[in-house]
Amino acid sequence: MKSAQYKGNREVAVGTSEAIQPGPGEARLEVAFCGICGTDIHIFHGSMDQRVSKPQIIGHEASATVAEIGEGVTSVAVGDRVAVRPLCFGEPSNFDNGHAHVGKNLKFIGIDMPGGMQSSWTVPAYTLHALPESLSLQHGAMIEPAAVACHDVRLGEVVEGETCVVIGGGPIGLLIGLVAMQKGAKVILSEVNPSRLDLAKTLGFEVVDPTKQNLPEAVSKLTDGQMADCVFEVSGSAPGVEVMTELPNVRGRIVMVAIHPQPKPVNLFKFFWSEIKMIGARLYEQEDFDEAIQLASSGKLHLDKLITQVNPIDQVQETFEAIDANPDGIKYLIQCS
Amino acid sequence: MKSAQYKGNREVAVGTSEAIQPGPGEARLEVAFCGICGTDIHIFHGSMDQRVSKPQIIGHEASATVAEIGEGVTSVAVGDRVAVRPLCFGEPSNFDNGHAHVGKNLKFIGIDMPGGMQSSWTVPAYTLHALPESLSLQHGAMIEPAAVACHDVRLGEVVEGETCVVIGGGPIGLLIGLVAMQKGAKVILSEVNPSRLDLAKTLGFEVVDPTKQNLPEAVSKLTDGQMADCVFEVSGSAPGVEVMTELPNVRGRIVMVAIHPQPKPVNLFKFFWSEIKMIGARLYEQEDFDEAIQLASSGKLHLDKLITQVNPIDQVQETFEAIDANPDGIKYLIQCS
Ligand SMILES: [Zn+2]
Ligand SMILES: [Zn+2]
Repeated sequence: MKSAQYKGNREVAVGTSEAIQPGPGEARLEVAFCGICGTDIHIFHGSMDQRVSKPQIIGHEASATVAEIGEGVTSVAVGDRVAVRPLCFGEPSNFDNGHAHVGKNLKFIGIDMPGGMQSSWTVPAYTLHALPESLSLQHGAMIEPAAVACHDVRLGEVVEGETCVVIGGGPIGLLIGLVAMQKGAKVILSEVNPSRLDLAKTLGFEVVDPTKQNLPEAVSKLTDGQMADCVFEVSGSAPGVEVMTELPNVRGRIVMVAIHPQPKPVNLFKFFWSEIKMIGARLYEQEDFDEAIQLASSGKLHLDKLITQVNPIDQVQETFEAIDANPDGIKYLIQCS
Repeated sequence: MKSAQYKGNREVAVGTSEAIQPGPGEARLEVAFCGICGTDIHIFHGSMDQRVSKPQIIGHEASATVAEIGEGVTSVAVGDRVAVRPLCFGEPSNFDNGHAHVGKNLKFIGIDMPGGMQSSWTVPAYTLHALPESLSLQHGAMIEPAAVACHDVRLGEVVEGETCVVIGGGPIGLLIGLVAMQKGAKVILSEVNPSRLDLAKTLGFEVVDPTKQNLPEAVSKLTDGQMADCVFEVSGSAPGVEVMTELPNVRGRIVMVAIHPQPKPVNLFKFFWSEIKMIGARLYEQEDFDEAIQLASSGKLHLDKLITQVNPIDQVQETFEAIDANPDGIKYLIQCS
């Protein structure tokens, strides 16, 4: 049983792991593919060493086949092809308001607990979503990031005919644009990388390079002064935060998708003046996975265009290094078995 | 006809003005009382000289009796006692999304156009809300700030059983607390001024002085760890913005009521982590005035306790100076006729 283990110091080593027999309510998976997320890169860089124990098997964007089920599991059967919603719900707390998916005692599988970059993986069966025949296991590994996008667009309350601006054209930014387009929205993507801009154009977005054009002016031109109904801040950058409040129209929304570890200056006057709303979005709920699977299997998310490379688990260290070296890349998958 | 005119340089002079005959759709009012708002104080300090022409008749928190009506006015009759919703709607713009109350071409009466501190005042008839018999004209002058509070609480989606924290115990902060209490919420008020804290206690709020107690810890104790469902930032202060993100629970809301002229550092990570929402709130709509009138006439807003002084228009300069000198004061009214 192979696994990819974060060891600290920009090292992800391939090791052997024991297959764990599933307990009651659990399932053991044979993992097919596991995508590498921005969060995994943060872990690789050591930025999450306070949270991640070492060594830790990382990865949370997995597709798999059910190999074994524990006592009482009826929601999946051996042989089912599945995507994993990597949330392990803890004790509900007063503070949660019933929102277990971002609750106080939530553990995120692949960060706080062993993740999906291993050939054999045992998880709670409630994390599993069956994949339809029409969806390949490679695309199945894209369901987790697609569910993030579905969640973000849902919290942004995007409806047909609206204009969305997505700040940042990485995998999540592109998927948000694609999901918003499926809602009938017009999508303007702001990104500085020329290769990502080219890709975004082929996906049907209007594109703006904010280092070459004034973004608010470009949005005004593209919308005949109407500006954006919903803005997604996915860049995690200070210029992204600075410009985000210049884009919404009256009662427009900003969805805060990116992680900003440090407080950043925000134009609060704009919130007051135009009664703007900002909605923080972190993790998906069941319905977001359902929607992601439905959209992915319809082919409308163009997942093929988002997969940059698929590498065997033996090359996991090289793959992390390749991601660091290639700003043009979108999504890298690790083949786990 | 007397009027209070802002002349610049911390001067509000009493002058004479002509009564203006109401045109079609307009009404001429005999103003009874006009409250002095924080915005008027900003004008007095010169902070809004770029926006306010000089001399300008200021004031936008007025109660009045209809003295004369123009052609086509059927919504009010001569002799009606009214409160004024001081919004003059301009051309609707693409950018407004149908929200005229904060639209691009909105003019605010009393800032962008002559206001209510005059004995005879001509306004569009659509700005008028009839006052019930049970409501005094002094309390009628409190309807505008009460409508601000109704608007803020409505945008905060406060429902029965929730906990609200109001940061800042001036007139708007106290009114927000009172309106939230009428929704069945528990209200915790954070304020540094001891006299305002005393008043807040008599209104039924839990109170915290954040210079003496750690506010998030105090809220946690008062809510058994549940924290706030809705936070109102009314202080306009940097410490207010710093602490506001420490108070909401999962999917909690922050209503941005205060004016922050300069961008301030905001903990965006908290938005992401607990899926917090922030809603900018500026001006009322018709329904907020209706609700404010209903609550005020029921006596539940304790308006008597919020009125610090009522002075004749001849003392308007002294009154502005008194407000500057008295941090304990809440609402000062000018008697206009
Ligand atoms: Zn991820
Ligand atoms: Zn006011």
